[in-house]
Amino acid sequence: MAFPELHTPMRTIMTPGPVEVDPRVLRAMSTPILGQFDPAFTTIMNEVMEMLRLVFQTKNKWAFPIDGTSRSGNEAILCSIIEPGDKVLVPIFGRFGHLLVEICERYGAEVHTIECSWGEVFDPQVVIKEIKKVSPKITAIVHGETSTGCMQPLKEIGVACRELDVLLVVDAVASIGGTDVKVDEWCIDGLIGGTQKCLSVPSGMAPITYNERIEKIIQSRKKVERGIATEEDRQKVLSHRPIISNYFDLSMLQDYWGPRRLNHHTEATSMIYALREGLRLVLEEGLEKRFARHKIHESALVAGVKAMGLTLFGDQENKLPCVTCIGIPEGIDGEAVRGMLLNEFSIEIASSFGPLHGKIWRIGTMGFSCRKENILFVLASLEAVLLRQGFEVNRGEALQAALDVYVGKTEKVGVGRGSI
Amino acid sequence: MAFPELHTPMRTIMTPGPVEVDPRVLRAMSTPILGQFDPAFTTIMNEVMEMLRLVFQTKNKWAFPIDGTSRSGNEAILCSIIEPGDKVLVPIFGRFGHLLVEICERYGAEVHTIECSWGEVFDPQVVIKEIKKVSPKITAIVHGETSTGCMQPLKEIGVACRELDVLLVVDAVASIGGTDVKVDEWCIDGLIGGTQKCLSVPSGMAPITYNERIEKIIQSRKKVERGIATEEDRQKVLSHRPIISNYFDLSMLQDYWGPRRLNHHTEATSMIYALREGLRLVLEEGLEKRFARHKIHESALVAGVKAMGLTLFGDQENKLPCVTCIGIPEGIDGEAVRGMLLNEFSIEIASSFGPLHGKIWRIGTMGFSCRKENILFVLASLEAVLLRQGFEVNRGEALQAALDVYVGKTEKVGVGRGSI
Repeated sequence: MAFPELHTPMRTIMTPGPVEVDPRVLRAMSTPILGQFDPAFTTIMNEVMEMLRLVFQTKNKWAFPIDGTSRSGNEAILCSIIEPGDKVLVPIFGRFGHLLVEICERYGAEVHTIECSWGEVFDPQVVIKEIKKVSPKITAIVHGETSTGCMQPLKEIGVACRELDVLLVVDAVASIGGTDVKVDEWCIDGLIGGTQKCLSVPSGMAPITYNERIEKIIQSRKKVERGIATEEDRQKVLSHRPIISNYFDLSMLQDYWGPRRLNHHTEATSMIYALREGLRLVLEEGLEKRFARHKIHESALVAGVKAMGLTLFGDQENKLPCVTCIGIPEGIDGEAVRGMLLNEFSIEIASSFGPLHGKIWRIGTMGFSCRKENILFVLASLEAVLLRQGFEVNRGEALQAALDVYVGKTEKVGVGRGSI
Repeated sequence: MAFPELHTPMRTIMTPGPVEVDPRVLRAMSTPILGQFDPAFTTIMNEVMEMLRLVFQTKNKWAFPIDGTSRSGNEAILCSIIEPGDKVLVPIFGRFGHLLVEICERYGAEVHTIECSWGEVFDPQVVIKEIKKVSPKITAIVHGETSTGCMQPLKEIGVACRELDVLLVVDAVASIGGTDVKVDEWCIDGLIGGTQKCLSVPSGMAPITYNERIEKIIQSRKKVERGIATEEDRQKVLSHRPIISNYFDLSMLQDYWGPRRLNHHTEATSMIYALREGLRLVLEEGLEKRFARHKIHESALVAGVKAMGLTLFGDQENKLPCVTCIGIPEGIDGEAVRGMLLNEFSIEIASSFGPLHGKIWRIGTMGFSCRKENILFVLASLEAVLLRQGFEVNRGEALQAALDVYVGKTEKVGVGRGSI
């Protein structure tokens, strides 16, 4: 049985993640590894923590990745603070709100939900009213819903949670690195970011941050593994309500990422190299410039889509800048369009989940994929494919509209990661 | 705040993991990524499953990686089959037996343990007697204990478990790819391998396999996430005892790795590329040849260590071929020796945990690190450092003894991954 050398097609990846990885990140991953307790490696771990704080816009002591894909970060924070019977409020406005419910329920929380239609977000006052009614220990909410392309305003909710002594946990997997996520200013207690979206790092890590309000709960449930515990550690175990998961036990992860460097797992070396390089790219570009870049490309894409004669899906006032949802026109087979884009143009765009499956396409403009040539190529290709599938678009208008945006917004039109 | 380009020292990594990554694996990781449902990517996923079956020596349908470090594989299998109150027997002969206990207890198992001294393994009959006494649902045991360098014979235990209708779950993180692990022949129901040890792939994935006995339990607890469930899925949820972890829920992971391709997490693309290349290297070398290579380098290392005048630790009859434990001589500061090896020679060897901390050094001979030049370099360096630290070794003997092994075992003395 022979397995050939890895040989992959080149794709233009315009989904809401995973997106194209910056070549500098790919290169960083091919660096020979170091041992996990090598001082040269623990220095890198500390640098990653420092860079994460800057990207999360926080002064939190704890900011490090969980070694798993994005949802592992959700589970790590939630399972470390939820004890059976704890009340959790989850406002749901798309698929990933359901995921939060699912995780909380599995760990024994009494989950209260409010829902709004997919494609809308909550008026913060509605959420705050519900918080007052339910008095939960935790409110868990998604920031950017990739399933619907909507972004929930959080600041008012955060301030209210702090006043009411409710913990606010936010899934910012899709938004981090692509638009403002102000952990401290918005009074977010625990937050999960994603790597494979606006950070343009491969999937496989979930950077998280949490503050001392969450740390206090974690410390009260702290445990040191028997195989490595000292006598002192054993005597300190007062808790009869340990965190259920060993892998996601933040009290142990803290001891690994903190100065004690107590062995837990073996840190995923090459992924740390990737994350470090991805964060460096964000900081080199600068948060404000990076967010502005995402906005400009979003504008060009939106202008092109509209000019073509297609309609956007969802509340445009609360649009997630890095995800654009497009209604699939009547009579058009959405999957046939996606298939032709992939097979003829080597472009990937996404469908959606649940109630939106078959109704919308989703185009991501995230991180390194969020480049002018990609926007123009996806518009040109979508036009051609729609014509081929029998949908009469406004021929030639999409690219003109997109170019108008670019010409209006910048003089320098280059190719490259920071370029617009 | 400026973060410089990643710049790491080159190390000779002779710990029991993580070990040096094969350059072909590093290169595979720098391949541009694909979307997770791109047919080109799902083909790669299927290839990885097929290669894993060969390395695990199994015909099991299910063989895929968990996206997390090694212990995530332990947790995934155990949490997917343990329900509160289930009896689990864990025979402990080192640190990682304690880890199995810890995971099982957290998920509510009634854990029974037997222990033997660190540095020994169990007479299989002792374990079988205990199984008969306890009548557990599951026996969970480590195959190769990296903390003590011992390897537990499993076949008799496996056959007995099958006869007694007990599930056997094995942690083969340290042994897979370095010595025989015969999942089917040894009647192992669920098994966890590691990437960063004898496979020479970076840490961050945990390849697992399990058979239909385990699948049956998983299927009875099956759940489809609300955000993506169809009406049919919803009606099928009969279970009131779902798996607690969402991330490690094998019933959902099966639906992602199987033909349904139901979205769970976003597969860690670059790590899959790495694992694929690591497995290709194992299969190209051939299991028998690879295991023989590990044995020869072990022999050379052991001969050198003995010739130097040092003593080996632990039951040599049941030695893990890829980990050699050495007693730290009286009056010598083990950490000072390790520090000097790292700082002067850029070589990393390991200490150990718990009762063995400060008493032994552990030298790994795993995967790509398991090369002649590495063995010779570590012996030469250890000799020099010990002399410097005031321990009078038999000068010059170690390398002569190691070379004798190599000259006796092979004519061709090359440098390279498959070479001895």
